[in-house]
Amino acid sequence: MPRLKVTLAYDGTNFAGYQIQPNARTVQGELEKALMQMHKGKRVRTTASGRTDAGVHARGQVVHFDSGLFIPEKNWIKAMQANVPEDIVIRKVEYVHDTFHARYDVKKREYRYRILASDTLDVFRRLYAYHVPYPLDVEAMQEALKYVIGTHDFTSFCSMKTDVEEKTRTLFNAELLQENDEIIFRFVGNGFLYNMVRILVGTVLEIGMGKRQARDMQAILAARSREQAGKTAPPHGLFLWSVSYD
Amino acid sequence: MPRLKVTLAYDGTNFAGYQIQPNARTVQGELEKALMQMHKGKRVRTTASGRTDAGVHARGQVVHFDSGLFIPEKNWIKAMQANVPEDIVIRKVEYVHDTFHARYDVKKREYRYRILASDTLDVFRRLYAYHVPYPLDVEAMQEALKYVIGTHDFTSFCSMKTDVEEKTRTLFNAELLQENDEIIFRFVGNGFLYNMVRILVGTVLEIGMGKRQARDMQAILAARSREQAGKTAPPHGLFLWSVSYD
Repeated sequence: MPRLKVTLAYDGTNFAGYQIQPNARTVQGELEKALMQMHKGKRVRTTASGRTDAGVHARGQVVHFDSGLFIPEKNWIKAMQANVPEDIVIRKVEYVHDTFHARYDVKKREYRYRILASDTLDVFRRLYAYHVPYPLDVEAMQEALKYVIGTHDFTSFCSMKTDVEEKTRTLFNAELLQENDEIIFRFVGNGFLYNMVRILVGTVLEIGMGKRQARDMQAILAARSREQAGKTAPPHGLFLWSVSYD
Repeated sequence: MPRLKVTLAYDGTNFAGYQIQPNARTVQGELEKALMQMHKGKRVRTTASGRTDAGVHARGQVVHFDSGLFIPEKNWIKAMQANVPEDIVIRKVEYVHDTFHARYDVKKREYRYRILASDTLDVFRRLYAYHVPYPLDVEAMQEALKYVIGTHDFTSFCSMKTDVEEKTRTLFNAELLQENDEIIFRFVGNGFLYNMVRILVGTVLEIGMGKRQARDMQAILAARSREQAGKTAPPHGLFLWSVSYD
């Protein structure tokens, strides 16, 4: 059966995360419900590049599945969009080689984390950016980010609720962008541990607030202990921005 | 009792409109519930600059009420914010003269209407901009807007569900701004009829799509008939942007 690669965006606000679970509204659940409808009641199993937690958004999640439907490539987007709820947007559908794997073949992932760095609340961004109403030292945060670029054991930046044993990952880039009243953290890597971006952001924010020094990042990495890092930043500022393959 | 003027923003998505009604979640209802809590269970009546419909947003709605609480001006924002839900943001609270009236004293109102002018859906703006995936003739729309500036009988641009008899209003400005993939309509006037902005936008969009000519606006105004104008644009693109007083 032909294999399809789908690029989708979703607003994580009203999902209990990406991964399917009974009695909860999930992105995978809604996606497979839509595919089942398109396949006359037959269950279609999907594989994503990775999960996202409850409240986390995606601009470019990637999923693959196999389908025997004879739909021309350019009609797939409309057909799928017609069957998913409004908080999922199908951005791209492509026929790919039947060995393509959305999780195993990932070369690079990019996550972004939006901070609303302002005294005042913004009701229209409350679901899409973490509001930090304290002054932030941008230079200190930029220095802190430099220490995590490269290949490291990221145990200190991984939730203890994980079964993954090998915690070495490579960050190709870690930087911050300033756009009007926002600070946007951008992380590009070959893989990310559970809650890694949110713990990195939480720790860098503590440096930005002057509670820690930028160079403390080195000691935190070396400690290989979750307790040494800062708080986990809330989910609603986080976006799975893009996933790249060969 | 001292009078207070409050400037507030709200996300209209989950409200059945501004005005209080039984068994529905309204902005006024939530606001008065918060004030009742702050006033030990005593009902506090509020008066707004005007209503907004279900789904319509506000960046700068203005409301007045009287209160005997001895709260310094700078503490009012925090005190009110602590009692309202997350989709209402209290932006400013000021003590004003006890003759100030949020509705009668309005000198100017500004509404904006956001169009996402793009082939593709954007899941993060679906609640805050009206998606128009067709090419739009910006110059024709700009010309159309010029015809409505000034003092006119706006009967053609008023919902028939209204009791207001006098339908002459003055638009000080009507223009469009282009920002990236958005077209933002901006209307400034001394007053607006029921659904006036949404009918103006719906009509101008039909001109943008080539279904009507820009100069048709003159005939539509002159006809004084709702049937001559275009469709009412959906509520979620509309923002009560600001209200000005002397």
